[in-house]
Amino acid sequence: MDLFGVLHLDELSHGLANLSMFPYFDMAHYIVSIMALREQPGVLEVSRVSPLACWFSSMLFCFGGGVLSAIMLAEPAVAPLSNSTSVLLASITWYLVFYCPMDLVYCCAALLPLRLVLSGMKEVTRTWKVLGGVTQAHSKYKDSLMVMIAIGWAKGAGGGLISNFEQLVRGVWKPETNELLKMSYPTKITLIGAVLFALQQTHYLPLQKHHLMLIYTIFTVVNKSRMMLTGSSTSPFAGIESAIYKTLFTGHSPYAALISEEKKACIKNGATNGTTSTATTGGNRVAGKNTLVSPVNGQSGLLKAKEESENAETTNCKKSK
Amino acid sequence: MDLFGVLHLDELSHGLANLSMFPYFDMAHYIVSIMALREQPGVLEVSRVSPLACWFSSMLFCFGGGVLSAIMLAEPAVAPLSNSTSVLLASITWYLVFYCPMDLVYCCAALLPLRLVLSGMKEVTRTWKVLGGVTQAHSKYKDSLMVMIAIGWAKGAGGGLISNFEQLVRGVWKPETNELLKMSYPTKITLIGAVLFALQQTHYLPLQKHHLMLIYTIFTVVNKSRMMLTGSSTSPFAGIESAIYKTLFTGHSPYAALISEEKKACIKNGATNGTTSTATTGGNRVAGKNTLVSPVNGQSGLLKAKEESENAETTNCKKSK
Amino acid sequence: MDLFGVLHLDELSHGLANLSMFPYFDMAHYIVSIMALREQPGVLEVSRVSPLACWFSSMLFCFGGGVLSAIMLAEPAVAPLSNSTSVLLASITWYLVFYCPMDLVYCCAALLPLRLVLSGMKEVTRTWKVLGGVTQAHSKYKDSLMVMIAIGWAKGAGGGLISNFEQLVRGVWKPETNELLKMSYPTKITLIGAVLFALQQTHYLPLQKHHLMLIYTIFTVVNKSRMMLTGSSTSPFAGIESAIYKTLFTGHSPYAALISEEKKACIKNGATNGTTSTATTGGNRVAGKNTLVSPVNGQSGLLKAKEESENAETTNCKKSK
Repeated sequence: MDLFGVLHLDELSHGLANLSMFPYFDMAHYIVSIMALREQPGVLEVSRVSPLACWFSSMLFCFGGGVLSAIMLAEPAVAPLSNSTSVLLASITWYLVFYCPMDLVYCCAALLPLRLVLSGMKEVTRTWKVLGGVTQAHSKYKDSLMVMIAIGWAKGAGGGLISNFEQLVRGVWKPETNELLKMSYPTKITLIGAVLFALQQTHYLPLQKHHLMLIYTIFTVVNKSRMMLTGSSTSPFAGIESAIYKTLFTGHSPYAALISEEKKACIKNGATNGTTSTATTGGNRVAGKNTLVSPVNGQSGLLKAKEESENAETTNCKKSK
Repeated sequence: MDLFGVLHLDELSHGLANLSMFPYFDMAHYIVSIMALREQPGVLEVSRVSPLACWFSSMLFCFGGGVLSAIMLAEPAVAPLSNSTSVLLASITWYLVFYCPMDLVYCCAALLPLRLVLSGMKEVTRTWKVLGGVTQAHSKYKDSLMVMIAIGWAKGAGGGLISNFEQLVRGVWKPETNELLKMSYPTKITLIGAVLFALQQTHYLPLQKHHLMLIYTIFTVVNKSRMMLTGSSTSPFAGIESAIYKTLFTGHSPYAALISEEKKACIKNGATNGTTSTATTGGNRVAGKNTLVSPVNGQSGLLKAKEESENAETTNCKKSK
Repeated sequence: MDLFGVLHLDELSHGLANLSMFPYFDMAHYIVSIMALREQPGVLEVSRVSPLACWFSSMLFCFGGGVLSAIMLAEPAVAPLSNSTSVLLASITWYLVFYCPMDLVYCCAALLPLRLVLSGMKEVTRTWKVLGGVTQAHSKYKDSLMVMIAIGWAKGAGGGLISNFEQLVRGVWKPETNELLKMSYPTKITLIGAVLFALQQTHYLPLQKHHLMLIYTIFTVVNKSRMMLTGSSTSPFAGIESAIYKTLFTGHSPYAALISEEKKACIKNGATNGTTSTATTGGNRVAGKNTLVSPVNGQSGLLKAKEESENAETTNCKKSK
């Protein structure tokens, strides 16, 4: 591309492509991942009760992508363990983050400037992992775009995708949510990266690999920094997503019909129930508690977030079911 | 066999054996599978909240058998994704069933005559899948009947066998039941098919392969049609099953002893509790609520279905525990 | 080692190393494993409702180690099924333990002297399984100690490590605990064995293989017998564990700080809440019920066991949260 030549970015992109992840970027990835684990509710308790479960959880946070993609490609799931240096580095990080005297390591790394740098470096490793996954899949399945995307995604965002099972190691089980039902920002950006690199690999995207690496890396690092500095969690793709969603997945869908039928029924019920509402207060409270365990209600919760634009009557109506 | 020669079924069975599943029968399999998914409670909500989770669930319904047998044989679990044409076909089906304007596709396919034809065609694919699994296992494990049965079963009824994890994708978790604890009709018929084809493969069953394919296919199609037309869900093997069960798994079993001991204890308790029953109403109500979450109670539920012939006293007794 | 020469143990250790596990020791392993399954709550019900689920659970108890290590090494998970003789032997054992007329087999095997012998023989198979796993991993990953330990552990204690999923087969789901969070004695002794054999394999431990086998086998058998005879479940490593734990995982840890902060807050709350305690009785009862389903509370439970030495005020304080 001429743009790269004009801006003298060609050398920069070559330099980036030849960058070695080991040890500094890998280290940053371990620190940020294990700090993210430590900030999950209940993990500090687990770290005290069972250091082994805590260590295993940390390893899944650090090497989850490798484990998941290995299982998907029928390669040994223990392979990440066979790289002794990486495991040792990650284990030392784990120990320092959780058990360092005076909690020095965590407190230092949690300072905004340092955390910003570490998070930026972690984002750089994402590019390498996604590309690694896509290349690995390409070497096995020459012309299958789907497999390349799946493996690239699994390798880059494995820790998130297997989070249900990672939580199980710590004795936590939240079946009502997962990364497919409610995608987090890192999972989303990794999926986009996997699609782009897979398209590049199959020459559908007319870009050179190191140029794409540069563009993708800059985008993820800048975006992550912006999100950390402004504290916002709004995805930069919210607009596009919403447009795609409205075009493809709504309209005269069966679900819309279902909702409108429910609405009618609710209005009728509302008229009748209005006078008896005081009597059912106890029942409502029980229903409210159930949302903690019931997966179906959990889904209603997700749904409600998307339905904020609809009128409040429907929502009340659903609750009184 | 002479019977086949006499009835001129030899050409028919050869014709059937040379039938190609792609694209019409595969298509029917996708449509019926995804419609079955759509009719699960809560799926329409998921399809609106997270099309990706819905798509992934649909793919597990369509290709679950391939994924499960691949994992069991240590072959890449992403292999079904590498067949781009199948995935594309299944994805289009998924889109049309869930998001078609005016819900045309689902409404048409749900009409009884069309659904009958599609379900019949889906049953035909079952024969091919079971046979494929058995053959694949035979090529790896020459003389292991068990492995052939397991892989044939997994390939033919994979969607059902992994249903716990397929539900997890949609945020639903029902640990108290699975296809091993309470086998559905398709799982059962597939198991029988896997046993028959494995016996044929190892020459314990003196039948030619294409003859067995014809017999098994006719049996499954006719039986499925009968069940759809009469609306009955009684298995044609209920009698045989019951006989085997009574011969092998009851009698002076430890469990029978346990039950009878409980019965005695209950009678004693019943005499004492009779007068205090009003006081424990609150407790009973709590117990009733627990059945929603407790897996052990879930099992009692299953058990009760089998114990209908026993007297009511035992059942009451169990409830008051 | 000279000690072995002096005590004439060299021949003994060679004899032990050449011992064949099949069929007597394997048989003992199956009997003890399936009896352990039968003694789990709810299993007798399952054995009556669904013999197939019960059989599958039994096979996971008997061959869980093989299945888990196969998955970790990307070898076929059905491989244990391909050894027809073993599966047949285990299936016969399963049938006799669960459905034998008059419950003869279980009652006999449950007699203390016989059970002692069978349990001792089962412990002998542990040595062979751990060693098998370590050797298998060594042949694939020459110099990775971690992989050897992981595979040896998985092969020796697989049934325990996959217990969450084994329970799922029976319709039971207990996410709040697993063998990593709260290690049982067999899992612990297997981990130690895996570490020792891996160190021996990589020549860090200056012992010959058959000597280590003799020492480890004698230790496990003697210790198991002691535990069965005295009925105690205290681990012989409790002292060492506690020392390691105190040295490495406590002190100025972040969690200790968290606890002490909570303590202060509690004291303040305690002063205020003291007078209103009668009013919150209902609330406490609800909290008590929640412990049945809430994984986080489950962890608190585990934690409390380790915190017995702390003062009672903290504990009360936690409950009133």
